[in-house]
Amino acid sequence: MSPALLLALAASPLGFAPQAAVPASPLASWNDGPARTAVLEFVERVATPGSDDFVPVAERIAVFDNDGTLWAEQPIYFQAAFAFDRVKAMAPEHPEWKQAQPFQAILEGDLKTALAGGEHALLEIVMATHAGMTTDAFEGIVTDWIATARHPRFDRPYRECVYQPMLELLAYLREHGFETWIVSGGGIEFMRPWAEQVYGIPPQQVVGSGIKTRFELRDGQPVLVRLPEIDFIDDKEGKPVGIQRHIGRRPIAAFGNSDGDLQMLQWTAAGPGPRLALYVRHTDAEREWAYDRESPVGRLDKGLDEAQAKGWTVVDMKRDWKRVFPFETR
Amino acid sequence: MSPALLLALAASPLGFAPQAAVPASPLASWNDGPARTAVLEFVERVATPGSDDFVPVAERIAVFDNDGTLWAEQPIYFQAAFAFDRVKAMAPEHPEWKQAQPFQAILEGDLKTALAGGEHALLEIVMATHAGMTTDAFEGIVTDWIATARHPRFDRPYRECVYQPMLELLAYLREHGFETWIVSGGGIEFMRPWAEQVYGIPPQQVVGSGIKTRFELRDGQPVLVRLPEIDFIDDKEGKPVGIQRHIGRRPIAAFGNSDGDLQMLQWTAAGPGPRLALYVRHTDAEREWAYDRESPVGRLDKGLDEAQAKGWTVVDMKRDWKRVFPFETR
Repeated sequence: MSPALLLALAASPLGFAPQAAVPASPLASWNDGPARTAVLEFVERVATPGSDDFVPVAERIAVFDNDGTLWAEQPIYFQAAFAFDRVKAMAPEHPEWKQAQPFQAILEGDLKTALAGGEHALLEIVMATHAGMTTDAFEGIVTDWIATARHPRFDRPYRECVYQPMLELLAYLREHGFETWIVSGGGIEFMRPWAEQVYGIPPQQVVGSGIKTRFELRDGQPVLVRLPEIDFIDDKEGKPVGIQRHIGRRPIAAFGNSDGDLQMLQWTAAGPGPRLALYVRHTDAEREWAYDRESPVGRLDKGLDEAQAKGWTVVDMKRDWKRVFPFETR
Repeated sequence: MSPALLLALAASPLGFAPQAAVPASPLASWNDGPARTAVLEFVERVATPGSDDFVPVAERIAVFDNDGTLWAEQPIYFQAAFAFDRVKAMAPEHPEWKQAQPFQAILEGDLKTALAGGEHALLEIVMATHAGMTTDAFEGIVTDWIATARHPRFDRPYRECVYQPMLELLAYLREHGFETWIVSGGGIEFMRPWAEQVYGIPPQQVVGSGIKTRFELRDGQPVLVRLPEIDFIDDKEGKPVGIQRHIGRRPIAAFGNSDGDLQMLQWTAAGPGPRLALYVRHTDAEREWAYDRESPVGRLDKGLDEAQAKGWTVVDMKRDWKRVFPFETR
């Protein structure tokens, strides 16, 4: 039974839904306003048979950034928290890390120094923690972490720090024939182990950054070994490239929150027929965080200008969302 | 209406199907025998709720090689015929090709000399004909070619030189909740424009070899430009890598015809639970071609040994298929 139908059932005084029940309120955690209206009108246009803007189901592809769009990305990317936790867990096997940056700083809890090495240091951390094992082993490591690690501010599992309005949007689109995809700068194999349970998005609909793998027979058993070598960076200009590589069809709807998503929104919006390009803007310092043009994480600057110039939909988190996280009690 | 239901309808003396109609004969172009039985029994095991070997729909992933498995690959790979046709079509813009191999030989119809340059010559031909345009332009070129080019032996469009029993197998698997994927050494963007119409496989379920692309804004319009640089070779050890990259989940059924598919079958067969690994063996010189251990195209040598050692299913085309191509009249 769909959540919408369950809701209708619960709301019925007789305890059953009338035969022609219309789901009472799609996008229930969205306030009435221009963002919610833009989404509802777009979906009605493309999904109504006979409409001038009708789009066949096979072409209803919607792409979502992950960090800052589906789940939070503060105070640091959750995948960075994962990598730091891995450094700590692996430290006993790496006594040399006690005297080698950036590992020493991570072990001492000094993230500022750890990140002072910039991109090179980050790459070292990623390769030390994400490569050198089989794909099956890495999946197990991520699955264990996501089940237990908790967000420092909310003291909730990271997997609960997802945006309730976006979960509703994913479900709403799927109910209307859309295939929903993640297209994230984050690691593809970091997201796949939990994306199906958390977002309803199966592994084959996750696009992300990745490292190379190598097929090997070990004692006659085939394995895929994760190598310390970048294969693909799914960010900025890389996002349309990743979309073409994995989907091979231009999406008709794209959802992001930062300049890293700009090219994905441009690529989506430039196709023929009806298009929805939407930015989530972080404006709610109380329930979440407020940041955009100056933020080192999730900067939204050029993208905001282009959204305004092109009339793209901009969600103002504070204004447009009744509830941010599923765990909020209101 | 499904083809199976149509069949049942046509077969009914009263012109309608009984309510509980069971499709009379799945895999109608397959002769009764061990290969057909192996497929039917496998599908029944994984798709019957309550069965010890039941597999949830989300995990019912089936992967198919293309050349020699879904469509023919003789006298040359169809994509090579496409590339040669492109060289001829592009020759007026490249007067230098009249004196430069391998192009000169192609223009003179001397394929032996054209291919004498080996891998390097092939790469030159591929880059000259497959790169240097936008993804949209290349899609148009392939779409035009596949609509008109004809197979030299059968004098039929290449898209009709597909195996009728495999079309039935694709449909049968999908009717039982499988997601069907192509995992081919051929070009991913060469297959996508027609795979949906010919096989019912959408572009996002096509994995293949590919070249790099670059995102650009041209007069403010975003395009993806195809670059003369290999991105990925989806053959042999590359096939499990491509499967992991695109699907992120191990298939439970794999279908191939050559040593290039061996690692894909190994990877698929090595997972837990019920597995189907199947080789199509080309044994029918009359209706198609007969080739295996010695063939330069589609060699099946190591794979055949391993299939016999591991008890994988081997289709003997001559023995197991009632009909090879849809256009055969019998």
